[in-house]
Amino acid sequence: MSSNLAWAKLFTAAPTMPPDPPKPSSSVLTSNPHKIRTSPFYKHVAQTTGPCNLVTTAGQIGIRPDGSVPSDPVEQIQQALTNLGRCLETAGADVRDVMKLTYYIVDFDHTNPRHRAPLLGFLGEHRPVTTLVPVPKLALPEIIFEIEATAAIPQQESERVDVVVVGAGLSGLQAAVDLQKAGLRVKVLEARDRVGGKTWSVPAQGSVCDVGAAWINDTNQSRMFALAQRYALDLIVQNTSGNIIVDEGVGKHKTHPYGELLANAEDREDIKDIVRVRNIFEETCQQIDISRPVESGTALLKDLDNITFEAWVRSLGCREHALNALTIGARAMLGVEPRDMSALFFLDYCKAGGGYMLMRSDCKDGGQYLRITQGTQSFSRGLAAELAPGSLMLQSPVRCIEQVGGGVRVVSARGTYEASRVIVSIPTPLYREIEFSPPLPSMKMDMAAATRLGDYCKMIVFYKTPWWREQGFCGLTQSCKGPFAVTRDTSVDADGHYSLTCFIVGQPARDWMLLTPADREKAVLDQIARIFGPFAKVDDKPVEIVEQIWQNEQWSQGCPCPVMGPGMLTKYEDVIRAPAGRVHFVGTETAFEWKGYMEGAVRSGERGAQEVLLTLNKARL
Amino acid sequence: MSSNLAWAKLFTAAPTMPPDPPKPSSSVLTSNPHKIRTSPFYKHVAQTTGPCNLVTTAGQIGIRPDGSVPSDPVEQIQQALTNLGRCLETAGADVRDVMKLTYYIVDFDHTNPRHRAPLLGFLGEHRPVTTLVPVPKLALPEIIFEIEATAAIPQQESERVDVVVVGAGLSGLQAAVDLQKAGLRVKVLEARDRVGGKTWSVPAQGSVCDVGAAWINDTNQSRMFALAQRYALDLIVQNTSGNIIVDEGVGKHKTHPYGELLANAEDREDIKDIVRVRNIFEETCQQIDISRPVESGTALLKDLDNITFEAWVRSLGCREHALNALTIGARAMLGVEPRDMSALFFLDYCKAGGGYMLMRSDCKDGGQYLRITQGTQSFSRGLAAELAPGSLMLQSPVRCIEQVGGGVRVVSARGTYEASRVIVSIPTPLYREIEFSPPLPSMKMDMAAATRLGDYCKMIVFYKTPWWREQGFCGLTQSCKGPFAVTRDTSVDADGHYSLTCFIVGQPARDWMLLTPADREKAVLDQIARIFGPFAKVDDKPVEIVEQIWQNEQWSQGCPCPVMGPGMLTKYEDVIRAPAGRVHFVGTETAFEWKGYMEGAVRSGERGAQEVLLTLNKARL
Repeated sequence: MSSNLAWAKLFTAAPTMPPDPPKPSSSVLTSNPHKIRTSPFYKHVAQTTGPCNLVTTAGQIGIRPDGSVPSDPVEQIQQALTNLGRCLETAGADVRDVMKLTYYIVDFDHTNPRHRAPLLGFLGEHRPVTTLVPVPKLALPEIIFEIEATAAIPQQESERVDVVVVGAGLSGLQAAVDLQKAGLRVKVLEARDRVGGKTWSVPAQGSVCDVGAAWINDTNQSRMFALAQRYALDLIVQNTSGNIIVDEGVGKHKTHPYGELLANAEDREDIKDIVRVRNIFEETCQQIDISRPVESGTALLKDLDNITFEAWVRSLGCREHALNALTIGARAMLGVEPRDMSALFFLDYCKAGGGYMLMRSDCKDGGQYLRITQGTQSFSRGLAAELAPGSLMLQSPVRCIEQVGGGVRVVSARGTYEASRVIVSIPTPLYREIEFSPPLPSMKMDMAAATRLGDYCKMIVFYKTPWWREQGFCGLTQSCKGPFAVTRDTSVDADGHYSLTCFIVGQPARDWMLLTPADREKAVLDQIARIFGPFAKVDDKPVEIVEQIWQNEQWSQGCPCPVMGPGMLTKYEDVIRAPAGRVHFVGTETAFEWKGYMEGAVRSGERGAQEVLLTLNKARL
Repeated sequence: MSSNLAWAKLFTAAPTMPPDPPKPSSSVLTSNPHKIRTSPFYKHVAQTTGPCNLVTTAGQIGIRPDGSVPSDPVEQIQQALTNLGRCLETAGADVRDVMKLTYYIVDFDHTNPRHRAPLLGFLGEHRPVTTLVPVPKLALPEIIFEIEATAAIPQQESERVDVVVVGAGLSGLQAAVDLQKAGLRVKVLEARDRVGGKTWSVPAQGSVCDVGAAWINDTNQSRMFALAQRYALDLIVQNTSGNIIVDEGVGKHKTHPYGELLANAEDREDIKDIVRVRNIFEETCQQIDISRPVESGTALLKDLDNITFEAWVRSLGCREHALNALTIGARAMLGVEPRDMSALFFLDYCKAGGGYMLMRSDCKDGGQYLRITQGTQSFSRGLAAELAPGSLMLQSPVRCIEQVGGGVRVVSARGTYEASRVIVSIPTPLYREIEFSPPLPSMKMDMAAATRLGDYCKMIVFYKTPWWREQGFCGLTQSCKGPFAVTRDTSVDADGHYSLTCFIVGQPARDWMLLTPADREKAVLDQIARIFGPFAKVDDKPVEIVEQIWQNEQWSQGCPCPVMGPGMLTKYEDVIRAPAGRVHFVGTETAFEWKGYMEGAVRSGERGAQEVLLTLNKARL
């Protein structure tokens, strides 16, 4: 059973998250003239009301990223609108910024305006001007709908600050807060319409659930625990009471108490093998100096950067079920397969979180020990609330970072800023989305291009009651078959909502993401029934389902931490943190401790702020 | 054989032209969202990245200026794109400024996207957002393709200077250089994407060729010779060694040495007639006071402004072949027919270049004595390079010149400038392209509307060897049949390239310009074979052909010098140079000496700068 920590009771109750920073206002004004036939579906006139940048899109059709086209017309229209939404988001615009929509419909039947419902869903309250053009066909024979938009993004006046921070995730926000405390003028430019990056707490069951980062601890994650205290957040100890369930592929055993490896006689050899391999991991892990894993490492460690994690595990002569268990670990921790990363990268990643066993643990000192009632985005909102008013601009993707003369010019979708220094806090692989002038050093760009973000999805399934607990299960399950690799109990008892979070990660996620939304849901619910079914009566009537596919996020493109293949750590162990002139780099993947975790993000932000303060002779000694 | 002048050897070698001033940067950013199906042919999102003016075009169809429509679909698409390019150029934009293209295709067949190749040719490296709309028909039955564009032109911040110079041809640049030398802040606004106006040296055969002004001399063209020395340009004496060829219409004689009028017995009467008429021209010419040809002229001269040159020549009782020779002269010198200009205008034009015989001469002191190895655009680039950095804006056609309060406000496509004075250096007939406020005096506008620019084309035909020289010809030919009136040897022996430049001018040009590009080329090559054929073995395998039609140039609309019909010089001899308030006028047609030549342009620029300095009390006395 989950329960609040005793000391959590001492905090002043903070039942809700701090509010989101305000979205930038739109400068598009729409209206209807007097004495004209009006429509509830569009307005007649749209105009800009101040300095604006203009956005135009190509005609968007209902084609999926893989080139397929839904055969159902409404689904096709929906896909076209999804694509249009992506175009707007890329530009830093949203639907309120749309001035005009033109849409082309093949075989239009005015008695059956089937585009209308999806379109109104897309527009929400906003009514831009529109033109509907019936056409005999479109550019491809299967396409029946095409839509294009003109939008306008209001422009702030140019501003001169000391430091521009690109990205308002935990690392960027922590850096900004530290810099402001040191007396510097800071501007934080965030591409999304919210703060938090990979911390994102979305509404569910009258409260929130974490579709991104979810766990901290109160010992070796000192920064996160301090923030939890600072923002008076309510903490929930992760439920480990009761049995876990593992599917057949991980061994013939099926269920046993959390943290134990009880097995019947026929599984004994498998268990011995797992324990042996784990011990090798842990021992090797603990030899690593996380400040320079390759440079200061032994010959063995250096060699381990030249092979994949999978190749190394196989070279240890382990049995199939041990490999399966390790595969689940790699997927759940990084969203990749053991073959996708170097052995040393994986071990260093574990060591950064205290070691292989600790990072995987849901217990005291472990990586998944405490959750946050108010959601982990509260950390980001809390930091954002500490910034001076006006320091933060949402929906401001940065286009260009130009180092000119003695400073840096940062061009964003909503304005241009001059600064002495810039801190870039976006995921390494997204550096390519920004035009750097002069270009970033080629080693930096090579690294950014070569790292790989995990395929990481969550499906959070809410139930009326915690039926698994009532039948003796803690909610942790493991499967190497998928689609999900792991489930965990993510209930917030205090709010009376009960959920299992299913992690669809690595190779199984790559297949699962191609399914339709309904099929994705069915696949997960079927697996819940399959894995719990032999031991418990499964509640097959979830009350709510929340899905998050991090691959689809324009400004994340994956989760939780870019992964390095063989040889890359050897090449890039210093490159990842190296400033480029007046541009500095932070982000959880640049941390020494707790890479890929919130703790790593915050620590990297502190490091970035210190770098800047040192160069500006403002460091507190 | 052409050869460098002896003193040219003393110059420091400058084998290449100074570089072109940089084009303005585009502020259109195009991109693709993450997780969307992309195409190599377009981008999904285009946005502006700073203050911009917006440009939209009408749907452009493949209709030629004469109203005809190519029957070949691809040719029709090509013509539509040519028209679209003209629209952009008029606006001061180029293809890099295009955000969005929408195109409409009749009977679109997605298996045969025949629009694609011409479109990609038009776009170069740029990929705007696009929408393709298949339609059952367009506004005219024969039209199968229509395309419209949205573009954005970045806007400079307003600036206050002492003088704005409109146009970066030789006259404007000379004025700007003189004004900056006197300590004034000057902004030069050029509509084209290059400097030089009618000096334009384009790449050919690994070097350059002059498609515009090509000749200077080192005696009575003192300004041009000084500039050639200042920029260490290599000079080439025009080849006059060997025979010229004339076709039957100019007399029955066919070929004779350059500068002689040798003829066989049957031609004697014709030659006598030509000599008689020439002498009358020269004598009348020399009576003219070029500072006020009408006002200070004799009654005869005043009368000569009331009849056309053709009428006057006919009144002298000359024979047909003399009229033909004079027609060739008028065409080659001004791109018009003898009937298109007043007799006095033509004589004054000749007197400005030393007289009829001198202006036509390719020898020492003549109008066509020396060419420039690096191309004549080197003069313009050299002057531009003398300007303070940032003084010159390309692709900045001027829209409005408003005299308000104590100054002038100049609105260009890329920004607005406040100045004390403005110097307009564009061709007189192009004044109508600018909105003057208050309007220019009606006499000025009447003059601008009534002058006529010549139909002036060059086709420069390159050969592997100078085959004409090897067979005893200097390369000069004359024909009243056309399409070309004159050819000249324009080889640059030092660079190993050999060319004949064919001048297609006057009435024959008006017909020739209507042909397709292939037919234009064929017509010229056929004529070369026809005129040289009876005397020499013609090389029928040119290695390169460069064509220039000055009529098609948005910012020239003809060449070389606006021509006045009967009565206009009487009305406008002072008007052409008269300032309008704080607006001054320069340009080769406003020169007293060497009107229509580079020398006249530079001298008019000096005069314009002096006018401004006088009014601002900054003249050096």
